[in-house]
Amino acid sequence: MKILAIGFDIGGANVKVASAMIPVVMDTDAILESAFVTRKYFPLWKNSIDLLENVLHDSLLKHVEHHESLLASGNPCTIRVAATITGELSDAFNSKKEGIMKISGALSLACERVRNMFLEVKPLLKIKRPVFYGIDGHFRELDEAIEDWRIISAANWHATARWLGTRIKNGLLIDCGSTTTDIIPIIGHHPCTKGSTDFERLMSGELVYTGILRATIPSISHEVPVGEKMVPVSFEKFAIMADVYLILGMISPEDYTCETPDGREKNSDAACRRLARHVCEDASELGHQKIMDMAKYLHAQQVKRIATSVKQVMQWVQNAREGKKKKNLIAYGTGLGEEILIEPAVKAAGIREQKLSAHFIGKEHSISSSAIGILFIIILDSCMGESLAE
Amino acid sequence: MKILAIGFDIGGANVKVASAMIPVVMDTDAILESAFVTRKYFPLWKNSIDLLENVLHDSLLKHVEHHESLLASGNPCTIRVAATITGELSDAFNSKKEGIMKISGALSLACERVRNMFLEVKPLLKIKRPVFYGIDGHFRELDEAIEDWRIISAANWHATARWLGTRIKNGLLIDCGSTTTDIIPIIGHHPCTKGSTDFERLMSGELVYTGILRATIPSISHEVPVGEKMVPVSFEKFAIMADVYLILGMISPEDYTCETPDGREKNSDAACRRLARHVCEDASELGHQKIMDMAKYLHAQQVKRIATSVKQVMQWVQNAREGKKKKNLIAYGTGLGEEILIEPAVKAAGIREQKLSAHFIGKEHSISSSAIGILFIIILDSCMGESLAE
Repeated sequence: MKILAIGFDIGGANVKVASAMIPVVMDTDAILESAFVTRKYFPLWKNSIDLLENVLHDSLLKHVEHHESLLASGNPCTIRVAATITGELSDAFNSKKEGIMKISGALSLACERVRNMFLEVKPLLKIKRPVFYGIDGHFRELDEAIEDWRIISAANWHATARWLGTRIKNGLLIDCGSTTTDIIPIIGHHPCTKGSTDFERLMSGELVYTGILRATIPSISHEVPVGEKMVPVSFEKFAIMADVYLILGMISPEDYTCETPDGREKNSDAACRRLARHVCEDASELGHQKIMDMAKYLHAQQVKRIATSVKQVMQWVQNAREGKKKKNLIAYGTGLGEEILIEPAVKAAGIREQKLSAHFIGKEHSISSSAIGILFIIILDSCMGESLAE
Repeated sequence: MKILAIGFDIGGANVKVASAMIPVVMDTDAILESAFVTRKYFPLWKNSIDLLENVLHDSLLKHVEHHESLLASGNPCTIRVAATITGELSDAFNSKKEGIMKISGALSLACERVRNMFLEVKPLLKIKRPVFYGIDGHFRELDEAIEDWRIISAANWHATARWLGTRIKNGLLIDCGSTTTDIIPIIGHHPCTKGSTDFERLMSGELVYTGILRATIPSISHEVPVGEKMVPVSFEKFAIMADVYLILGMISPEDYTCETPDGREKNSDAACRRLARHVCEDASELGHQKIMDMAKYLHAQQVKRIATSVKQVMQWVQNAREGKKKKNLIAYGTGLGEEILIEPAVKAAGIREQKLSAHFIGKEHSISSSAIGILFIIILDSCMGESLAE
């Protein structure tokens, strides 16, 4: 029987989905090549949970449709859905438990709607109830996931690192996305972190709450250079780091997937106006060179911030491995920030060798590596003959 | 002829209005006592300029109505309206010039609507065209104000300080509001600052872009203590400083005039949930004591930030006054943050004597001192016989 695997990573700002047919023989490169990946900017704090259900429902259909030619063979086919959740931290919810409950509930309802529809129009397609991945490496069905919400919370990094652990023995996975950066040591093929929850990982440096698009200016620096003076910045969300990288020509308007703070254009001129406002000034009054210098400084500061955490993580990893042959870990960078932030940060942290996403996951999957991670966990789970929840 | 003076301070987040009958003999205390003051939370970045016109129109009527018993004497009465503008920095506008143009235009239209209405129903009341106050101490009519937008921009601190200069010879006016803090030296009865524009005042420390309600957490500190460790904070706008002061019991829910970041309740429990989220945790998981400690730390950091700027300003004031008899300046604190932030910051900056608003403007006018400032400028202008624009 054919099996289609669909992995969801449901964050506070983005829904990422990756899907592939489960092969008879595990061939990572072939799966990566055939994988279909989508990403939708969907800020939970601005939308209702009903809308999330619709987005998940539509994503499911889109992914099934993509593989339709492989499915339409007259034979029955099973669709396995699994998810990692990080959106529970959003203040759309009163607590993380409520977040896990509502998000997992939304995916379950979306699957049920698709199942009921298929019963009538595509009786050969059977979609299973979704399961949820936890930081203990196990899947849970809805009820159990809600019960064990602490284990389900923010487990996407674990799925990605566990998958990478099937390809490498030791290394440092660094995923720098729009909002956060994960720094995950992989030792002996397994994710090996000091912290488990987001809170613990913040403390250990394994979670850096900074990202290439949505990070705010004062979260990077309380002051910026203007001409020869340092000037304190306004705390208003006038600009975000996406504006900085747009000004520096490091990202394209298409990379700028979140909304602009002022709702205006995603181009360099508008971004300059937004950034200038942080020192209470019009862009035309400051002039382009000064704004470029502000942007360069902010880029350097964000690199420094990530480098500090990379060093912090390396420190305890080296200590833990003391006695073993000291060999430098290789850093594996992924996410939209891999070249702009991870590459210089890793260098600054003194790591000599690094590989970017093109060398292990494919450049096209770089910004959705967490969805690829959960997709592979489903496939591995199926190939190992373990049964997912019915 | 009787004259009613109405002063507007139109900011990015609040519209403050103060009004009083212009007396025959200048008596500051009597005016302060009879002054009618209103404040409306009106975030420009969330509202249209048409709505602003309505708010200004309604404020005008409300203030005229308040003084109606004094006006209704069968004699003609003139209403003089003047404004300071700071809302032009809002990203509702493409540039400050556009901001000044639209805001001054809105007040002019609001006045015109009231004038036309009065022509029919209250022919004895004649409202003049509004004038706009600039940092050069002069009023300008609409066209000239737009032309000289750089001078009109952000002049409210100048009006307040100029008024205070009629009461004291030397001193340091510190106004700590919801969003920003102004530190204005008054020397020889006049405001005497190093910077004129917001940008220049940011550099000189005379404008501190931090306030007691709306300042964001990462703008105060990039990390907070949790138990015995320092933990980096998320850049999301999960909580604001109003939550910190609500948790510490320093402000009441009524003082919390802006909206909460998550749209939920203005009470300590909800504020704890918001603040806990900054270290990616639920309040119930952290426990109340740890959240209190986070809040105390953030309060201390915000005080430190203001103290640093007070010292910076004092430094050059002392240098400028070198040679004169060295006498410590007295600090005059006003605004919602006068006790919570200014009092400890002034102490930390080494200023020995300070007076809070109750001693020079009246506690009830403290949070709207900028509107009181412009009101007094109209009155002084009238008493000195200078004519405002017709």
